[in-house]
Amino acid sequence: MMNVDKLYDNAARNGVVCLGLDTSAAYIPEGFLAGFNTVGEAVFEFNRKIIDATCDAVACYKVQIAYYEAMGLEGLAAYSKTLKYIKSAGQLAIADVKRGDIKETAAMYAKAHYSGDFEADFVTLNPYMGMDTLEPFEPYFAEGKGCFALVRTSNAGARDIQYLSADGGRRVYEIVGEKLKALGEKHMGARGYSAVGAVVGATNAEEGATLREKLSTTFFLIPGFGAQGGRGADAAVYLRDNNGGTVNSSRAVLTRWKKHEDGAARFDSYARAEVLDMREQIVVTSY
Amino acid sequence: MMNVDKLYDNAARNGVVCLGLDTSAAYIPEGFLAGFNTVGEAVFEFNRKIIDATCDAVACYKVQIAYYEAMGLEGLAAYSKTLKYIKSAGQLAIADVKRGDIKETAAMYAKAHYSGDFEADFVTLNPYMGMDTLEPFEPYFAEGKGCFALVRTSNAGARDIQYLSADGGRRVYEIVGEKLKALGEKHMGARGYSAVGAVVGATNAEEGATLREKLSTTFFLIPGFGAQGGRGADAAVYLRDNNGGTVNSSRAVLTRWKKHEDGAARFDSYARAEVLDMREQIVVTSY
Repeated sequence: MMNVDKLYDNAARNGVVCLGLDTSAAYIPEGFLAGFNTVGEAVFEFNRKIIDATCDAVACYKVQIAYYEAMGLEGLAAYSKTLKYIKSAGQLAIADVKRGDIKETAAMYAKAHYSGDFEADFVTLNPYMGMDTLEPFEPYFAEGKGCFALVRTSNAGARDIQYLSADGGRRVYEIVGEKLKALGEKHMGARGYSAVGAVVGATNAEEGATLREKLSTTFFLIPGFGAQGGRGADAAVYLRDNNGGTVNSSRAVLTRWKKHEDGAARFDSYARAEVLDMREQIVVTSY
Repeated sequence: MMNVDKLYDNAARNGVVCLGLDTSAAYIPEGFLAGFNTVGEAVFEFNRKIIDATCDAVACYKVQIAYYEAMGLEGLAAYSKTLKYIKSAGQLAIADVKRGDIKETAAMYAKAHYSGDFEADFVTLNPYMGMDTLEPFEPYFAEGKGCFALVRTSNAGARDIQYLSADGGRRVYEIVGEKLKALGEKHMGARGYSAVGAVVGATNAEEGATLREKLSTTFFLIPGFGAQGGRGADAAVYLRDNNGGTVNSSRAVLTRWKKHEDGAARFDSYARAEVLDMREQIVVTSY
């Protein structure tokens, strides 16, 4: 069974939330942090408690490697342990690494993030260098792994390149989306979606319906919800039958405890509460 | 003194070669590899010998993190040690990480690759998500650090996005180049080049002269030489007064020993020989 099929089934069973474990030390209650010898250990144990409290309520987890790289080798050990823990909990992990490089190098990235210490079920990829940079990932798609390549991101600067009108009047992101769909059709799963997903930001919903229609076999990873300003209605336009996409929230979930007087002691329960609230917002507004 | 000024001075003194330490276990002589307990250790010691043999003949080193990530945590320890050794040798390191993400995440990448275990003098960046993804790097430019952002890469797939004709008939890569130049003008060094460099592949030389002229204050990182098919003449068009760019070669240098009967015992000397040959090719053809 391909990972994109498992993701589809998870979304159907648990809802479409993708919980982003972009864990900064600043998100961890001081008292909890103080209980560990290293920040890396505290980050992993914080993640573990969040995963335990949410694994039946999310479609998958996304781990943003930048937060771990910023802690150096110790952080990457916590990154590796977090990925392994997600797997042991029977859940799916997206390695948010946004890699993209020439073939020989891309083959190294595929090996790095689909096997060994940093093995994940999906990786995010940056296609700016061209479609040949995705080729080394294809043998892994055949084994069930998946990816989400950047199409239209949630930041303001997305307009600088992705929105340029290019050959034939189409925008750059539309051209990228079509190329990804074509590649994905070589790697179709059993639920109507391919191993080649796309990152489409929830903060610009106007083109959402068109993208959903055109990229009919593309599973979406939808960032920008919560702290980045996206709302449930913005995210819902990218879904079909309340599936076909997973909506990410990171900071809003990890730091929900800060809004509550007893938050520090119950950060995991509050993370779950935020996931459930978010799930309800997206479902309600999509009907 | 800004790193881009140091790089300029190194290029003037040592020549424009950038030695890429994209070290795969397959590039290391078997006998040498066998002398270490772990592949990570062998990779670092291989790099150390190459650095010792070449540090007065290159402008800088580029370390492609993918090769180290593919070895997991052990590989990243070797990556960290390699960066530190380059610094202790009085040389400059480009972390070839091609990162690019929303501001909060980009700030984590800047911290990760400009300080701590993975500190480098320059990083490579991918601008597909937009210019706001570069903003978190600017405080570090003010402290002397630098970057090379992708403009036009050396792979065949570069045509998929970078060559699209966009608004006003310009190509996407030209628009990206102009935006980078404008950003760089806020961070000028003393030698006429800014902290914001550009990656421009040596395998498509026809537009080289135009790029060199338009991006007059942009230092170039020029990949694609050697194993990727670029020639000295292709690289030289990106230079001005035999400076203003650094020409990368990785595999051809690291594996030159394989062409010689006594290569395994003298891989470091042969790496130096390849650097000297390459330096001569670029200088000769640029006059």
